[in-house]
Amino acid sequence: MVSLIIVGFGNVGRSLADIMLKDREYLHKTFGFNSEIRAICELKGALINKNGIDVENLLKLNDISQSSDWVPDKTALDVVKEVDADILVECSWVNKDTGEPAVSTLKAAMNRKMHIVSSNKGPFYLKYKELKEVADKNEVMMGMESTVLSAVPALAAKTTLAGTHIKSIRGILNGTCNYILSQMTQNGSSFDDALKEAKDLGYAEADPTLDINGYDAAGKIVILANVFLGWDKTIKDADIKGITEVTAEKIEQAKKENKYIKHVCTAKDGKLTAGTELIPMDSTLAVMGSLNLVEFETVHAGPYTFIGRGAGGPEAAAGILSDIINISLLKF
Amino acid sequence: MVSLIIVGFGNVGRSLADIMLKDREYLHKTFGFNSEIRAICELKGALINKNGIDVENLLKLNDISQSSDWVPDKTALDVVKEVDADILVECSWVNKDTGEPAVSTLKAAMNRKMHIVSSNKGPFYLKYKELKEVADKNEVMMGMESTVLSAVPALAAKTTLAGTHIKSIRGILNGTCNYILSQMTQNGSSFDDALKEAKDLGYAEADPTLDINGYDAAGKIVILANVFLGWDKTIKDADIKGITEVTAEKIEQAKKENKYIKHVCTAKDGKLTAGTELIPMDSTLAVMGSLNLVEFETVHAGPYTFIGRGAGGPEAAAGILSDIINISLLKF
Repeated sequence: MVSLIIVGFGNVGRSLADIMLKDREYLHKTFGFNSEIRAICELKGALINKNGIDVENLLKLNDISQSSDWVPDKTALDVVKEVDADILVECSWVNKDTGEPAVSTLKAAMNRKMHIVSSNKGPFYLKYKELKEVADKNEVMMGMESTVLSAVPALAAKTTLAGTHIKSIRGILNGTCNYILSQMTQNGSSFDDALKEAKDLGYAEADPTLDINGYDAAGKIVILANVFLGWDKTIKDADIKGITEVTAEKIEQAKKENKYIKHVCTAKDGKLTAGTELIPMDSTLAVMGSLNLVEFETVHAGPYTFIGRGAGGPEAAAGILSDIINISLLKF
Repeated sequence: MVSLIIVGFGNVGRSLADIMLKDREYLHKTFGFNSEIRAICELKGALINKNGIDVENLLKLNDISQSSDWVPDKTALDVVKEVDADILVECSWVNKDTGEPAVSTLKAAMNRKMHIVSSNKGPFYLKYKELKEVADKNEVMMGMESTVLSAVPALAAKTTLAGTHIKSIRGILNGTCNYILSQMTQNGSSFDDALKEAKDLGYAEADPTLDINGYDAAGKIVILANVFLGWDKTIKDADIKGITEVTAEKIEQAKKENKYIKHVCTAKDGKLTAGTELIPMDSTLAVMGSLNLVEFETVHAGPYTFIGRGAGGPEAAAGILSDIINISLLKF
């Protein structure tokens, strides 16, 4: 039985609880996996039940503070000190410049010998090395698959492509950018109309600044470079451009040359870049809509390309659950 | 130090030895990985050196029986009984109907508590369940990533996509078929000319029958279905069609409908199929040339698509090496 603390119960946290409930039998049969949630931390308090929270009834509540397990004014840090668990899952709101409060929560959990799994990328594009040192010191695992393209097994390639010798990485790492550029390319939409559609469909945030200025995508290429290429960079080292200067005219001009304009991030030759590029129409990078993609160029066997949905509650939750299952297979 | 026995020293076996030699420092630094090859088995004898074969000098020989480590008339089975090693790597010639001699070698090695890694798919599309039982009984691992699309981490998705709940699988699983159809589609080549080019480029075997009749691709979907969907099927359960009835006219007709003709294998609703299908031009399945592709449809998060080179000596060797490294990370 794997015991969990979940920090953050928005779209991702709820999806995770929902999937673990619905797939309980499948997960037991397929991976010998059984779990219980001992605490769920929110901004204004926490649910705590050391015998396991009743998830089925909890998911019926719109406001989880109505649950009898609710303790007001408990912070995630309080919970980490008081509740024993195997794994802490971090999917709360995070300050993009400091990575807090997640960085402190993750460190405290690892120092209490908990493994951690996070869908928040802030802590890792800001303080990867620091967190890795705490993990190594405590001999615990850091599951961070969902920080880059949700459940697309990009970070897992560290081991799954171990024999290929990865030498550089590029990718289409932001679904909002790709959706906007695809709508402009395929349907002749204006930038503003495509952005509005992306918001309506839930791909873009209410404030999409960090998507369209390239910052979100850049954070992901920083993490990929540090994990795969052994670099020690932060987002401040990246050359970041967004998609706000793409016009209908530029897209039409590209199409005349049998090319698409795509927002591409690259880690190569010591440099981290994010910005628009002209991509041949028959390239594997020519994926459309909100799909994301990562491509590893290798020394021995050419490129390997992984494509999938890079955002969304169930998608991020599925990636978190993959990490949890893998930790449970290796450690328990 | 991970010790190896390699069975088969053709293109794949040589590539493996070559990569491990060239990447020695990289592998040590990146994965803490060190290896030595204690035996290499060929049809007419074996190289044996319990202190580790001198690979650098061996690779200079065209005929490895010239090495001072050569013992004539030793079979792989003899070697498994006489030489201690952590992992046996199987990349020899295999009978497509019986899986021999590889099946016997693999079983003997596992019964001697060696982990196994194989790029041969015959043993697994014929006798997966039997081999799995021997592995489980002896508590050893079976690395079989290279049996399906070489180093493309298709089988690794069992754990890397664990949280997504895979419900069906489809793929473009034979590079020769994809190359031929791509040449007919993009360059208007005839079937025969495209097949000849595929042979010249080394994608197709001298006898390409098993490629173009769909048998090779079907073997891979059988393995995928057994691993991911918990089925217990052999290649005899698959409905197999090839590409020999594709004509220039059919391809032109498809293009008029904005579609490509592709050779697609599917495992869905209890059925295994291999044959040609019409694929929309903007589908993720529309990969060209000799590239291969596998797509997992999931319950929680849509499809995940992996693309890469599915054949070739270094490509298969890179997949074998990924398996070896992963076993070493988990077991030693």
